Amino acid sequence: MGLPGGTVVAVQSHTMKSGLSFLVAARQCEIGELEQLALTSELVSVIARLIHALQRERGLSNVYLASGGARLADARCLQRTECLQVEAQVRQHFDQLDTAPRQGGHGARLFSRVAWVLHALDALPGVRAEVDALKLTPAEVTAWYVRLIAGLLAVVFEAADSAGDPEISRALVAMFNFMQGKEFAGQERAFGSAAFASGRTDSSTRQQWLHLVESQERCLQVFRDYSQPAIVQAWLAGQSGAALLEIERLRRFGCGPDGGALDRNLSHDWFDNCTLRMDAMKDVEELLAADLRALCERKIAQARAELRDQQVFLDTLSRESSADAPAGYGPQLERSILGMVQDQAQRLQAMSDELQTVRAALNERKLVERAKGLLMATRKLSEDDAHKMLRQTAMSQNRRLVDVAETVLSMADYL
Amino acid sequence: MGLPGGTVVAVQSHTMKSGLSFLVAARQCEIGELEQLALTSELVSVIARLIHALQRERGLSNVYLASGGARLADARCLQRTECLQVEAQVRQHFDQLDTAPRQGGHGARLFSRVAWVLHALDALPGVRAEVDALKLTPAEVTAWYVRLIAGLLAVVFEAADSAGDPEISRALVAMFNFMQGKEFAGQERAFGSAAFASGRTDSSTRQQWLHLVESQERCLQVFRDYSQPAIVQAWLAGQSGAALLEIERLRRFGCGPDGGALDRNLSHDWFDNCTLRMDAMKDVEELLAADLRALCERKIAQARAELRDQQVFLDTLSRESSADAPAGYGPQLERSILGMVQDQAQRLQAMSDELQTVRAALNERKLVERAKGLLMATRKLSEDDAHKMLRQTAMSQNRRLVDVAETVLSMADYL
Repeated sequence: MGLPGGTVVAVQSHTMKSGLSFLVAARQCEIGELEQLALTSELVSVIARLIHALQRERGLSNVYLASGGARLADARCLQRTECLQVEAQVRQHFDQLDTAPRQGGHGARLFSRVAWVLHALDALPGVRAEVDALKLTPAEVTAWYVRLIAGLLAVVFEAADSAGDPEISRALVAMFNFMQGKEFAGQERAFGSAAFASGRTDSSTRQQWLHLVESQERCLQVFRDYSQPAIVQAWLAGQSGAALLEIERLRRFGCGPDGGALDRNLSHDWFDNCTLRMDAMKDVEELLAADLRALCERKIAQARAELRDQQVFLDTLSRESSADAPAGYGPQLERSILGMVQDQAQRLQAMSDELQTVRAALNERKLVERAKGLLMATRKLSEDDAHKMLRQTAMSQNRRLVDVAETVLSMADYL
Repeated sequence: MGLPGGTVVAVQSHTMKSGLSFLVAARQCEIGELEQLALTSELVSVIARLIHALQRERGLSNVYLASGGARLADARCLQRTECLQVEAQVRQHFDQLDTAPRQGGHGARLFSRVAWVLHALDALPGVRAEVDALKLTPAEVTAWYVRLIAGLLAVVFEAADSAGDPEISRALVAMFNFMQGKEFAGQERAFGSAAFASGRTDSSTRQQWLHLVESQERCLQVFRDYSQPAIVQAWLAGQSGAALLEIERLRRFGCGPDGGALDRNLSHDWFDNCTLRMDAMKDVEELLAADLRALCERKIAQARAELRDQQVFLDTLSRESSADAPAGYGPQLERSILGMVQDQAQRLQAMSDELQTVRAALNERKLVERAKGLLMATRKLSEDDAHKMLRQTAMSQNRRLVDVAETVLSMADYL
């Protein structure tokens, strides 16, 4: 937006300051948001570590339960200690969250997700005790961890969705999708282990398996689209070719078109190779987290430098106007001020536009959540059942989950 | 999202509290946002009054200049006094804006708009002095006020776009569109006055005139879609049928298919009837503002009552858990807590979904702004020229401005 132009008019300096002070306020506001984002990014990094620890614990608990308590009891015990340590860090970061009100409803949504996660974490010791006592099946314990991890990912999602800086939002979208993709890989590890251990596969197993493969590939594609090329390179280079080949080979047994009997002995081989892959993904996650941290620091430093420049200019302005032109600024200064006001407005507008583009990647998930909510409300389904229903429609019609969700939403009036 | 279920587990009460405190934080966050929105709504009401005063001053200045200073000099002087009074109120509200950083970049954008407006307001005395001295043409002074009012409307737009509560956002969208529609009506008044005064019309005049009529009708349609039925009724009932009929009759002369000569004497008739219409719109604006204020108060009271209920429940909880079950809550209490966590998450999710639907009405404007920005960047145009280019394409191709904007954006790679 340009200032009413055409005529050059003298402008009072005492009122002018108040206009310029809003320029400074806009910049300070940006800096404050960036500082909040830096804290949120730290939280996301720690959550990534907790999810990784829980994924390992889930895997170990599965094997422990499947072997009737014979295998991996010690490893599980060690892993539990690590989980507790990282959980304490996550709780610390939650406590440090600034609970001051913010525009846009993001604060409330984030806190509501945190409340859910804390509630679930509080129940974790009880679940562990039941695993100790072999009172849960591998499927039950898997489902439990899947939902806890989904809750943690929902916190990361809100963080990505609330970021006001497009570059940081982009990095958070990459991070969220990588974490979600890794979680699908973890679920595939558990699912495949159970399938091999059962010694057979059928069409339902195949469909669910393929669905997990496709889900993780879709997430990783978003990660590749939104990440720095250097990180994508590191991701491609860091994957063990041998482990990947072995995973593909085993997938062919488990979810290939043939099906039928599975070699039970391949269960360990499957688990180990999947674990290698998960650990490689963990390394990439650390890179993404470090990149996010560096990005926040760079952006804050840059915004502070720009604020300093702006303030130097404003100081010059107030000196010059009081000395030479007490009644107002000359046409030249007037044009510099106008340029500054316009540049800032345009820069913020461009940021907002870019943000909208970046967030489009988050919309798929929102559509699925909305469709789920609709099914829960209209058909009195639990969240799990609503998700299952969508997923099964997607699988049986060979369509993407998000397309089914869109269809469901467009049929809202009929439900 | 449901809590990992299936197993009922005892939960430690000392850590539980921290999860529930986030439930409370989410609610407090909502209340804080509502209080901010109430302040923003006050600001919007005062801006509406300032715009109305400026629209009158624009009209009077036009007649004053067109008559070589002979007509309406006193009325203009009185109107200037009123403008100064309302301007002081707007400045006061700007000063009260909370400049603390918020997520989502809305704060920075709002402040940047405010900086622009203050800068323009500071230039207003100079413009008035040039009108006093008959140094500006009616077209120049009209263009100047149009841009100042556009800047004020941009502040209202940011307020509507940043509201996190869907009901309030809806009311702000209605208010913004009504104000924008009224401004198009004001521009039509000035444009028509000048056309009648010139004594002739041609195809370019007709096209611009029709464009102003269509723009205001589109805005008023959004207002009708988003407003309370009672306010729409008041709007329909409050319009003077005689004035409307006369406006339609005069429009037929000015922008009907015939064109050619115009009766100069109709200029006053046109101006007066348009002014009646603008004043009726002002009354509706007051209703919209009062409705917005009442809505904010109701929402705040409701959120506070819900917070109280929640706190009563939490107090009961902490008493019961310390007395009867020091190690944790029983399954029944556990289910109430879980229900509360889930209800809150679902309510916030539903609000967020509805918000997205409401904001869709703001997207048209954003598309036009983006297309303008693209033209300014790629073709080195001023903002005015970029807007003119879009508008002329729309007029000559008989398409809506937003459709042309979309086409321009889709051709970005070619520009």
